[in-house]
Amino acid sequence: MPAEPDTFIEIVAYDWVPAAARGHVRDLRVRWALEEVGLRYRTRLIDVQNKPTAYYAEQPFGQVPAYREGDIHLFECGAIALHIAEKDERLMPRDPAGRARAVSWLFCALNSIDPFLTGMSVIRFNSGDAPWQDEARAVIAKPLERRLALLADALGARSWLEDRFTVGDLMMVATLRSLSFGTLAVPAAISDYVARGEARPAFQAALAAQLADLKPDREGVPA
Amino acid sequence: MPAEPDTFIEIVAYDWVPAAARGHVRDLRVRWALEEVGLRYRTRLIDVQNKPTAYYAEQPFGQVPAYREGDIHLFECGAIALHIAEKDERLMPRDPAGRARAVSWLFCALNSIDPFLTGMSVIRFNSGDAPWQDEARAVIAKPLERRLALLADALGARSWLEDRFTVGDLMMVATLRSLSFGTLAVPAAISDYVARGEARPAFQAALAAQLADLKPDREGVPA
Repeated sequence: MPAEPDTFIEIVAYDWVPAAARGHVRDLRVRWALEEVGLRYRTRLIDVQNKPTAYYAEQPFGQVPAYREGDIHLFECGAIALHIAEKDERLMPRDPAGRARAVSWLFCALNSIDPFLTGMSVIRFNSGDAPWQDEARAVIAKPLERRLALLADALGARSWLEDRFTVGDLMMVATLRSLSFGTLAVPAAISDYVARGEARPAFQAALAAQLADLKPDREGVPA
Repeated sequence: MPAEPDTFIEIVAYDWVPAAARGHVRDLRVRWALEEVGLRYRTRLIDVQNKPTAYYAEQPFGQVPAYREGDIHLFECGAIALHIAEKDERLMPRDPAGRARAVSWLFCALNSIDPFLTGMSVIRFNSGDAPWQDEARAVIAKPLERRLALLADALGARSWLEDRFTVGDLMMVATLRSLSFGTLAVPAAISDYVARGEARPAFQAALAAQLADLKPDREGVPA
């Protein structure tokens, strides 16, 4: 049950991004969490190429998402997902031991998996024609592949990282979806896990909502 | 006040690391949080070069820290710091709006700053003699330097990211301490902020405790 059912939730997202980023902008994660617990929200769309100066007061780096619910203002998809999860047992177990596991996996996705993907992504998109970029990405890929193998071990034969879906799975699946950008050795158990997450109706609804908010193209910029 | 004053807190740390890692292993962040709120803890030390196989059940990647408090088992320094902060107003404001800001900064440190530092660190330590490594690190440094400038803007003339010290500052300072590993353009306001954090008695106590747990050297490996 939402803690404050009458307070409107607003998230900030972009009104356009290039084709490769569609379905991957991080407001998707917040939309997904809201869909899982059945909370309605409105979106405020900003221009990724011309961000309002005032927006930096809401999000220090001008990124999305940001989140407002009455006088609660959050940024960072992890902080927002945690806030939403705390409202509802469907994302966060009520027992302290189960809660501890879910929160650990939430941070694990964002601080033990994402940094390698971010590093590879920065090298890919910001290195121009540098001849060494594949080699540099391979250096970052190697410890990530080790972690993916260990993550598959942790998952074992279960559908989710614990004995039920939690906000930890939501963030882990959302993070691992970036693997499609690379050429990594991904264990089949991890690919299957991501596919299971993407098959959830709440994920599909969130994805459709993000895509619906994105204008199809932009003058002078191919979509 | 601790929620469960009679439950023993145990953290897992290493008994030895190379000289460059001393004072930077992430159990330091947990020790710092515990020192800020005056909670006692015991350490269980493991061998970084020969990790017990059973430990992977506690921490999926075999890293430290891990944390136990009765039947609450946590991993990831962010999850543990959040858990400790939730016990005590000195790290976490009690009003929902203030709490939202502190949690946002906690995630910001770990998911909007750390990934760049991790990427640079992996390139530095895993690229062998590759002639392109400085160039690759510079590619990752550029967006990080932009974020450091924006973080300095967010800090403004305040001592901390909000109007008081929170767990968000603890994690941001701990993350930014890795800047000393690089050759980045760091705004003076950020260096001063890190120095303010490191000057806190709780940080100094945590640092001394980590160093005291590390054996001075290891046969065949210079310290």
